[in-house]
Parts: sequence; structure tokens; C-alpha cells
Amino acid sequence: MKPISSFFTFLRVVAWSTLLVLSTYAQAGDPLPSWNDGAAKQAIVGFVQVTTTQGNPQFVPPAERIATFDQDGTLWVEHPMYTQVMYCLERVPALVKAKPGLATSEPFKTVLSGNREAIAKLSLKDLEKILAATLTGMSVDEFNAEVKTWIATAKDSRFKRPYTELTYLPMQELLKYLRANGYKTYIVTGGGQDFVRVYSEATYGIPPEQVVGTMGATKYGYDKNGKPFLTKDPKLLLNDNNAGKPEGIHLMIGRRPVAAFGNSPGDQQMLEYTKAGDGARLAMLVLHDDAKREYAYGPAQGLPATKVGAFTQALNDQAQKQGWTVISMKNDWKRIFAFEQ
Amino acid sequence: MKPISSFFTFLRVVAWSTLLVLSTYAQAGDPLPSWNDGAAKQAIVGFVQVTTTQGNPQFVPPAERIATFDQDGTLWVEHPMYTQVMYCLERVPALVKAKPGLATSEPFKTVLSGNREAIAKLSLKDLEKILAATLTGMSVDEFNAEVKTWIATAKDSRFKRPYTELTYLPMQELLKYLRANGYKTYIVTGGGQDFVRVYSEATYGIPPEQVVGTMGATKYGYDKNGKPFLTKDPKLLLNDNNAGKPEGIHLMIGRRPVAAFGNSPGDQQMLEYTKAGDGARLAMLVLHDDAKREYAYGPAQGLPATKVGAFTQALNDQAQKQGWTVISMKNDWKRIFAFEQ
Repeated sequence: MKPISSFFTFLRVVAWSTLLVLSTYAQAGDPLPSWNDGAAKQAIVGFVQVTTTQGNPQFVPPAERIATFDQDGTLWVEHPMYTQVMYCLERVPALVKAKPGLATSEPFKTVLSGNREAIAKLSLKDLEKILAATLTGMSVDEFNAEVKTWIATAKDSRFKRPYTELTYLPMQELLKYLRANGYKTYIVTGGGQDFVRVYSEATYGIPPEQVVGTMGATKYGYDKNGKPFLTKDPKLLLNDNNAGKPEGIHLMIGRRPVAAFGNSPGDQQMLEYTKAGDGARLAMLVLHDDAKREYAYGPAQGLPATKVGAFTQALNDQAQKQGWTVISMKNDWKRIFAFEQ
Repeated sequence: MKPISSFFTFLRVVAWSTLLVLSTYAQAGDPLPSWNDGAAKQAIVGFVQVTTTQGNPQFVPPAERIATFDQDGTLWVEHPMYTQVMYCLERVPALVKAKPGLATSEPFKTVLSGNREAIAKLSLKDLEKILAATLTGMSVDEFNAEVKTWIATAKDSRFKRPYTELTYLPMQELLKYLRANGYKTYIVTGGGQDFVRVYSEATYGIPPEQVVGTMGATKYGYDKNGKPFLTKDPKLLLNDNNAGKPEGIHLMIGRRPVAAFGNSPGDQQMLEYTKAGDGARLAMLVLHDDAKREYAYGPAQGLPATKVGAFTQALNDQAQKQGWTVISMKNDWKRIFAFEQ
């Protein structure tokens, strides 16, 4: 056994030296080049340092390194309308083609009219009808294929680019930086879990099993050839917003996050829950204050609230009180999008 | 840039050579030493070989390597009673101490009597009352602490050992073998998701986020100091049995497994769903046919069904028809438990 054992020791030394040199090289570069120096960047780097340095009293074992990210307004643009709502509205013509009876009934008639003002005035109840009709009733495989096709071709009206290019470069860097330091990154979104899963891996490097979202039931059954499949059911299992976020995190992950990132009152409970754990915790809020490069909205900005989750004054107060770090898009981000020069 | 780039190439070559040599050494040993040679072992090794060999038409990319395991009767002993039901029954005295009024009301009175025959005769409705009272109503943290204490001390009546020692050694080897080959291993159990999560990492090397089980809702709230916490709610979100297993897999993982392992009719849909995917698929059923070393039960054995999920004749027929491999504990397993000599 001796010669083999020394050979193993030799190999282990070679492997470790290789890793050490590689990690020294990696550390030489700035992992967050799109972030300006400032309190936000310092909070991130300091947090990663203390939680990943063995022997530090705030060290977090790799298995417990869970970081959760809201999506809309935190990882990508949510203005003027959530991407998923755009999907649902744009699915209506295909839906009406399959079920022509819907053409003359509301709210589908209004959506088909293309009258933007009228569409913007649809009630929450109308919107729910459209969501239920376009997000449920089909097989999981059909739904995935439809979303995949749409997300590859649909474009945002202001930036004239696919929605998946409207992710924030600094947040993409942050996701990678955390993963390089042993963190498991999760999306925790008010959006549909199945919707986000279709593009999460390609867009954020986050696999479907690490997407927590608003969850609907599915129903198991068999097709005429006896092949089993799942149908998306309108029954809501969990609304992954507000208190639903920590509840969804417990359901899907079963561990309390060590770091959490959001941008609206719907993220407040996730940040509180994260911060209430022992040891080092990082809680951050993205503030949309850059009307030129992206958007500026929300009462904390002295601006009117919009339909999408705005950063309220109450949320701002909470951030001050609880030690959450506010990320100013205008001041903290050198670049917002990868396509910017 | 040139010198650094060649240095990196050098390091990469060193690292890869190290890995290759290590993997050759690893392959020299049998990864499944507690399995007898036979159809079951061959099915496993053959499946892993074709799905992990680059260039093989049945190659599965690492991200899609999902393997799901039923727990009770598949990973550990389920006879004569599910471990979680033992927990619930043994919690009753503490429950009655906290709520003395329950002492005189059924089914708690019967449980307190200690009369085994009477306890065995409790109806499903009575059992549900006991489960609801002992598994919900407390905070998630309290629940976790209670299960942790119990599982560390409670013992099985036949083997006189902690339940966590009653896992099947061949299945433990299989879990490790799959993980060593890039598979992500999940438990998909009819048992309580939160219950199994308490010991899954220490017992099976499976982290809480990879446990799919019967799921209850939680409720987010604040204690008197304003600290947020989650309470376990009696509301059932998903019964992770039968059709609930593929539904739970979709909810929690969002991918179809490539390999699935079960032992009872409650696992049938999970195995069907797994097998219905494209490419190589592995579906296996553990048959309890070793009365001497463990137990023998179920009509497929020509033995009476028991209260716990038995391997029925119908399930056996399904296995033949669908090409699932049956694992005979008696013939396929050299050792059943790690504590056996």
C-alpha cells in the first residue's frame, strides 16, 4: 500500500498547487468590473470574504451558502410591464385561434384589439383570466416549447432587443462571483416558476431546480398511447410574493438563505427572513434611479409608483432600519447592460 | 498574454492528467461491492457507462443527470411501520403534556395506553389526526430540533439500532456511485418533506434541497420581538405518493429523472414518468424477499400484503411489461446493512 499511498500524496499536492495558483490568478482580476467602488460593492466583497475564509468567525460551510435573487427589477428589466405578462398578452391570438369563441368575450376582445390604453386599464381580475388561459391547460412539454419559441424571438419595445439581453451585467457578475465562491444561486420570483425555468439556465446559469416562483399544480395522466404526461392545472399552490417568498424558500430549498437580493416591497419578507439568521448576512435592494440608461420609478425616488413593484418609501425606511444595502443603479453600476459600450 | 496562456495550458494538462490517473484508480475498485453479480448490478453499471461516456448515443449531459429514490422500503427499512409514524406515535406523550385535554380524547388516549394491538387497529382518519397534531402547529425550527433529538436516540425494536443505521448498504453504494458519475441524487418520498430533510444529509449525503416529499404549507409571521419565523401549517400542498410523485418531481426539480428507484405501488408513476423520457433510462424496484436478513412481504412474494406499501403482483406485471429491473434483496445483495459482518 505504501507506494500507492505516496503516489496519491504526490498527486494531491500537484492538484492542490494547481488549484492554488489558479485561484491566485483569478483573485488578481476584479470579479465585479461593472460595479463602481462604493458601499454596495464593498458590502458584497466583504461579505464573501468573511463567509468563505476558513477560521473566520463568520465562515459559512459550503453546503449552507445559499443566495436568493428576485428576478423582475433585480436581475432584469421589469418596466413598463413584466416580461411574463407580455408573453401572456402575446399568446392571446394563438389562444383565440384554438378557441375562436373567446374572440368576442372579455378580456380577450380588448387584448385582440391591440388598443394599448385599453389593455393598460384591464383590471387585476381580467389579467388573472388571461394568465390562467395562457399559462395553464396545456401539457408541461407544450408550455415549455411555446415559451422557448417566444423568448427566442420577442423583443422589448424600447431597447429593441430580446428580453434575455435585458439582464443587468453587474448582477450577472455578482451571480458568477458568488458561485465561484461556493454559493448556490437561486431565483426567487413572483413570476411563474415554470415560465422562468425555461430560460434560467441559458440566461443566468441557474438550473431549473434552483428556480423558486409562483407555483401551480400539475396533473399526471396518460395520452391515447398510454404515455404519461403532466398537464398544467389552474390550481395555485403558492403565490411566491411577500410572505410567500420565505414560505417558497422553505418549501423548495429547506434552508435559510445567507444572502438575498430584491427591489420591491414583494421582496421585503425574503430579506427580513434572510437577515434574521445567525452570523453574517447580506441583504440588498436595487434602486431604479437611472432614467437615462434604464428607468427611474417609485416613491423613494420622489417619483410616482408604477404598476410594477416600486421601491417605496416604507421599503427604504426598512432598509435603513435593518441594515440592508441599497444599490443605486445610477451610482453603483458602471455599465447596466452587456450590450452597452 | 502568450506566456500566461501557455502557463495555463500547462496547468490544465497537469490537472487533467491528475484527474485521469485518479479516475483510473477509482475504476479499478468495484464501486458496488455489496452487490452480487447479476442482472441488477449489470443494469446499473451498463446504464452509468452509456450515459456518462462522451460520444455514446445515450450520453446524458451532466446537468440532466437526475436520479430519484423513494425512501421507505427502498433506501431503508419500512417494516413493520414507517419510521415517521413511529416518530408521531412517540411524540404523543410530549404533546399531551403540553395540551393535557388530549389525554382523554381519542385517538390520543389509545396511543397513550401503549396497547400495541389497539394502536395497530387505529383507522387512517385517526392516524391523520395524530400526524397533524405532531407534525404541524409548531415553528419550523422547533420541529427540526424535535426530530433531530428523536432520530438520534430512537431505536428499531427488532434490530435494536437507530433507524438511520437501517439504511441498505447496497443502496448507499449506489447513491455514491451515481454521484461520483455526475448524477444529482434526490429522495422522492411519500413521507414528510421536512421530516426527512432533518437527517437526509447525514444519513444519505442528500442535502435538504434535494428532498421531495409530502409537502405542507408554512405561515410566515413574527415573534414578540419582531423576529420573523415560519409555522408549520396543517394545509396539505402535495401528497407525494402515486401520481403525486411525478407532480412533486416537476414542482421541485423541473426536470424528468433519468433513473428512478422504488419498491411499492406508490412508486409506479415515478418509474413510468422516468421511463417515458427519451434515451437511456433506468427504473428499478426493490423486492423484499429476505425474511432472514430483513423482511419478506407483499403478494408478489406469495405473502400477505402488510400495512406498508407492498410489492404487489400488479406492480410485478408492470415491471415485466415496462422493462423495469427488479432487485431481489435475497439474491442481489451480498450485505444488506453496514453493521452486518
